[in-house]
Amino acid sequence: MQFIIKKEILLENLNNVSKALSSKNLIPVLSGIKFELTEQGLSLSASDTELSIKTFIDKKDIEKIIETGSIVIQGKYIVEIIRKLPSSNINIEVNDGFKVNISTSGSEFHLNGINSNEFPDLDLEENKEPIIINNKIFKQIINQTAFATSTQESRPLLTGLNFKIENNLLEVLATDSYRLAKRDYTLDISLANIINIVIPSRNLLELVKILTDDEENIEMHIFNNKVLFKYKNILFQTRLLNGTYPVTNNLIPESFLVEVDVNLNDFYNMIDRASLLTSEKEKNTIKLELKENLLIISSNQPEIGYVEEKLEVKNKDLLTISFSSKYMLEALKSFSGDDITLLFNTDINPIIIKSNSETSLTQLILPIKVY
Amino acid sequence: MQFIIKKEILLENLNNVSKALSSKNLIPVLSGIKFELTEQGLSLSASDTELSIKTFIDKKDIEKIIETGSIVIQGKYIVEIIRKLPSSNINIEVNDGFKVNISTSGSEFHLNGINSNEFPDLDLEENKEPIIINNKIFKQIINQTAFATSTQESRPLLTGLNFKIENNLLEVLATDSYRLAKRDYTLDISLANIINIVIPSRNLLELVKILTDDEENIEMHIFNNKVLFKYKNILFQTRLLNGTYPVTNNLIPESFLVEVDVNLNDFYNMIDRASLLTSEKEKNTIKLELKENLLIISSNQPEIGYVEEKLEVKNKDLLTISFSSKYMLEALKSFSGDDITLLFNTDINPIIIKSNSETSLTQLILPIKVY
Repeated sequence: MQFIIKKEILLENLNNVSKALSSKNLIPVLSGIKFELTEQGLSLSASDTELSIKTFIDKKDIEKIIETGSIVIQGKYIVEIIRKLPSSNINIEVNDGFKVNISTSGSEFHLNGINSNEFPDLDLEENKEPIIINNKIFKQIINQTAFATSTQESRPLLTGLNFKIENNLLEVLATDSYRLAKRDYTLDISLANIINIVIPSRNLLELVKILTDDEENIEMHIFNNKVLFKYKNILFQTRLLNGTYPVTNNLIPESFLVEVDVNLNDFYNMIDRASLLTSEKEKNTIKLELKENLLIISSNQPEIGYVEEKLEVKNKDLLTISFSSKYMLEALKSFSGDDITLLFNTDINPIIIKSNSETSLTQLILPIKVY
Repeated sequence: MQFIIKKEILLENLNNVSKALSSKNLIPVLSGIKFELTEQGLSLSASDTELSIKTFIDKKDIEKIIETGSIVIQGKYIVEIIRKLPSSNINIEVNDGFKVNISTSGSEFHLNGINSNEFPDLDLEENKEPIIINNKIFKQIINQTAFATSTQESRPLLTGLNFKIENNLLEVLATDSYRLAKRDYTLDISLANIINIVIPSRNLLELVKILTDDEENIEMHIFNNKVLFKYKNILFQTRLLNGTYPVTNNLIPESFLVEVDVNLNDFYNMIDRASLLTSEKEKNTIKLELKENLLIISSNQPEIGYVEEKLEVKNKDLLTISFSSKYMLEALKSFSGDDITLLFNTDINPIIIKSNSETSLTQLILPIKVY
């Protein structure tokens, strides 16, 4: 294998596939990136068995293809080497015995490669009718929900994002059982079958890092136990989480006794300040009180002090409810409009956060009982 | 005590004094910042016993002084609270029993304060003839030397920067016994006495963070066991390290067998790339070879691979010498010109780095013996 390529092109593609590099390193070859050079171009692949990424660099973006072939190169080293080489043409050549030579005019790196036969088949399948979503919207959907997934491996299903599609309605849902984030999106096409899958949140956050700020679409190819995302020259495949995702529809109340509109920024800053006098040990609990036209946020750490934040609102009801300031702050960050609506029933019913300008997004936080 | 002050003014001063807050917290009152309000203005002080900082806000920068007095407030909380309050006037009031009330129109924080009598006397003395150095030059001197101090508490003296003044020549020196950084500076005045002190490097790096990018001078008031820096409205006092700093003058050779000029940037990048194939366990050792007009940098990690970097230079000598790439990169970062000169004798003599455009700066690195 031998070819000459511009640094920037190779580096961008290496950065993308490197997101699938195994840090656990159980299978030595999976700490490497597979280079596969044909007359059509260069494929780069990496996998940690749960997540696989492959990119393709077309021959028109390669300066010179001298000899086709393939090799696996240590991911950690090849990415850093290419990053630190000067912006110029880089010559990559594999000699006998899997020795890789990476050179520019002044630099010459010799790395021990691995036979590409040892690299597992990634089985990156596409199906005929992928679901197509605008790249920017897809990124927004993940960012508005993924923070609410659980990080505890004791309930593995809750570490994933639940994607449900019925007809043309996509519903993306995350919950760690203390809070819930739900985002709806109307697809351009209607599906014949109902889809209900759980995708590891961790992998979706890696995917979001790869997406750039353009108007390209992203394709979702869904299979029984895996899903393949196709975006520009990138194939990104993750396994699905097995099991039945909890039914949460009945968690979100249909009617509310108390409804208060607040400015998002003002409300965020109140909670943020009140959270200074909370403790993680006590779930960062703060108290919200409605007293006619006043919304009062307070928290109290007897050994340090207490804080009271007041905001004028339109309201006639009385309510006292406690919740995690950390969860509230994270939920509020998912909105981008100027105003939000806080919806309550009693102090033991879920708190719902909605926005008139983003009706497809719902955030739910369970209250904390304070005695 | 009661006064009203603009958020930005209070926050800037709190940020400066908070650099002396004790993280170890052995003496509870030292986790606090002392507020002392007189008719002349507000003093803020903090100390971890080794480092003490005091700032003064003149009455003209305070919106309203309502009642003089003093109190100690938990540093961690007061800084975060003021940071998160909106940009507006903040009212601070101490009630009976050392209760502190911090309020703006919508927010009200109540903190438990500490009696200011418990706060130790910081004894911030000035002397009559301080040494005066331009703020920017002082910052440069510290940044060019402090990185070479030792981080190992087993040789406490080497964790400090050695300041020597003889007549009008200031010499600042750092060494961890494997490398040495030395910066000379000619003072505006000549001193009658010789000064030879060692200042904790850690504290000088905190001081540098406080210095802004203006043309103000910094004053050094040197005492037997401490030094006080005065900069604008800030007093910054640190204890000195006790003991006799090693004499290192004879370490820097006076003549050299080999002298090579290189472009700083090119040489830095060569070392930086070669360092990719070094290991911390082996002191990040790389090899430099001079073969007539070629300077070759190489390193080798048998299980990973090896690298060779070449640069054309004007030279007639032969030399092979090994050293730590980490130390070399740190030494090179202290220069700002385009070119540097590398000075060698044999492979067991110190390597010296100088620059024609910055003759007051000398970097020394000991070679590593490779068998």
